[in-house]
Amino acid sequence: MSSAASFDTWVQDELQRVESALSRWVPADAPAGLGQAMRYGVLDGGKRLRPLLVRAACEAVAGDLHAALRAAVAVELIHAYSLVHDDMPCMDNDVLRRGKPTVHVQYGEAVAMLAGDAMQALAFEVLTPDDNDAEPMPALLQAQMCSLLARAAGHTGMAGGQAIDLASIGKPLAEDALCDMHRRKTGALLQASVLMGAATGPCSPATRQALSDYGAALGLAFQVVDDILDVTQSSATLGKSAGKDLDANKPTYVTVLGLDEARRQAAALHAQALLALADGGLGHAVHLRLLADMVVERES
Amino acid sequence: MSSAASFDTWVQDELQRVESALSRWVPADAPAGLGQAMRYGVLDGGKRLRPLLVRAACEAVAGDLHAALRAAVAVELIHAYSLVHDDMPCMDNDVLRRGKPTVHVQYGEAVAMLAGDAMQALAFEVLTPDDNDAEPMPALLQAQMCSLLARAAGHTGMAGGQAIDLASIGKPLAEDALCDMHRRKTGALLQASVLMGAATGPCSPATRQALSDYGAALGLAFQVVDDILDVTQSSATLGKSAGKDLDANKPTYVTVLGLDEARRQAAALHAQALLALADGGLGHAVHLRLLADMVVERES
Repeated sequence: MSSAASFDTWVQDELQRVESALSRWVPADAPAGLGQAMRYGVLDGGKRLRPLLVRAACEAVAGDLHAALRAAVAVELIHAYSLVHDDMPCMDNDVLRRGKPTVHVQYGEAVAMLAGDAMQALAFEVLTPDDNDAEPMPALLQAQMCSLLARAAGHTGMAGGQAIDLASIGKPLAEDALCDMHRRKTGALLQASVLMGAATGPCSPATRQALSDYGAALGLAFQVVDDILDVTQSSATLGKSAGKDLDANKPTYVTVLGLDEARRQAAALHAQALLALADGGLGHAVHLRLLADMVVERES
Repeated sequence: MSSAASFDTWVQDELQRVESALSRWVPADAPAGLGQAMRYGVLDGGKRLRPLLVRAACEAVAGDLHAALRAAVAVELIHAYSLVHDDMPCMDNDVLRRGKPTVHVQYGEAVAMLAGDAMQALAFEVLTPDDNDAEPMPALLQAQMCSLLARAAGHTGMAGGQAIDLASIGKPLAEDALCDMHRRKTGALLQASVLMGAATGPCSPATRQALSDYGAALGLAFQVVDDILDVTQSSATLGKSAGKDLDANKPTYVTVLGLDEARRQAAALHAQALLALADGGLGHAVHLRLLADMVVERES
C-alpha cells in the first residue's frame, strides 16, 4: 500500500473514532433541545483537522491514545462552538455552514448562543473524567490539557483573534498585524492541538519545541490557505459562503499580499512546518508530515 | 465586636481581596477592546456571593486560601459571563445590570458575545496556573476545580437551566420542574462554589456531603428569594430591571406557588442549609451560616 493510501486509511479510521467519541460525549438528552443543538453544531461535518493533529502528535511521542481521544473531542468542541457563535447575526451573520443551515437558523439565536456556551464548558468536562471512568486520566495531564485549551480559546488566543478580526473590518492592516490576528484566531487552537497530543506521552523539551514550531507554522499556513480558497473556490465546494471575507471588507492575506504572494507564503510556512519536524528528530512522524501537506493542498 | 459586625468586616475584607484579584487577572490589554469589555462585565459590581461561598468553605476546612482565591475569581467569571450573554437581545434583552448599561449596550453585541466567551475560558486559565506562578496549585486540585466548574457551568448545570428557562416562557411549570430548572440555572454554580472551597483543604466524605447539601439548599433558597424580590422590589433597589420575569411571562416560585408559599419555602431551605452544617459537624463554620442568613434576608 502506498504511503498516500495508508494515510487515507489512517485518516478515515481516526475520523470514525473521533465521530463516535463526539457522539458518545455530546449529550442527546441535555434539556430543552440544548443537546440537539449541540450535536447539530458539532457532529457530521468538518474536516476534523484539530482532532487529527492531536492524535498524530500523540502517536509521534508514543503517547496515551485514550487521553488523546478526549483531547481531540475537546479541541473540536471549542472549534465548533466558535463557529456557532461566529455565524450568529451579531457576528458574521452566516446562514450556511458545512453545507447545512447554521445552528441559529435551525434552532434560533438564543439556543445557538447557549449551545455554544455549553460546548465550551463540555470541552473542559471531557478533559476532566473522574477516577471511576473506564479510562481515567492522570490529574497532571488533566490540568495540563485544561491549561493549554483555555489559553488557546481565550483572550490570548481564539477569542482575542476574533475581537481583532471584528475591529479590522474596513481597515487596512499591515502584514504583521494580520499575522498576529491569525496566529490568535486560528493558529492558537491548531498549535494547542499539537501540544495537547504531545502532552499525552514522554516528550523532551526539544521535541516539545519542535512540535510547537510545527503547530505554529501549520496554524498560520492553514489560515493563508483559507484566505486563498475564500476567493478561488465556490460556496458549493467550501460548504460555506465563499467570498465572504471580501464581501465583509475584511483584510485577508490575499487582500494584503495579493494572491501570488499569499501562495508563496503558504508554501514557505509548509516548508517551515516540515523543517521543524525534521530538526526536532521527528522524521518518523509521517502523519504529522502528511497533515501539513493536507493543509496546504486542500481544495475546501 | 458583635458577630454581625465581625461578619461585615470579613465580608468587606473578602470583597476587597476578590476585587483586587479580579482586577489583576482580567486583562486590561486583551486586544481590540475585548479586555475593557471583560472588565466592564465583571469588575465593580455584584454581590460576589459565589466568591464569598468559596472562601468561607475554604475556611471551614482550613484549606489553602490562595487556591480559594483563584476559585473565587473563576466562579465569578462564569457567573458574570452568563449575565453578559443573558442580557443580550436574543436572550433577555436587558439594558440595565448592576445599575449600569449592560455590556452589549456599552460595547455592541459582537464584543459582548466574545467577551462572555473569553470570560468563560479565562475562568479555566485562572484555575490552571503554571508551576512558575508565585502561588502554584497542585495538579490534582487544578483538575478537581476544572471538573467541578465545567459541570456546574455546562449542560447539566447553568447552561442547561437557561435552556429550560427559555423553553418555559409562557408555559405553566409544575413545582418540581421549576425546582429542577433553578437547581441547574443558579443552584449548580452556587453549590460548586462551596465544593471548590471545600476541595482546597482536607475534607472527609461526610463533611463534603454536608457542604454539598448546604450548597444545594442555599442555591435553591437564593433563587426563591430572587423570584420574591423580582416582584417586591424596585429596579433602583435591585440595580436591574424589576418585574422582568413577570413581564417576560416566565414561571417563577411566586407565580407557581404564590408569594406567601414562596416565602415559606425560602425559610425552609434556609433552615435546611443550617441543619446540613450542624449535622456535618460544621458548627464552627460561622461565615457559611451567616452567608445563608444573608441570602434569605437580602433586599436586592
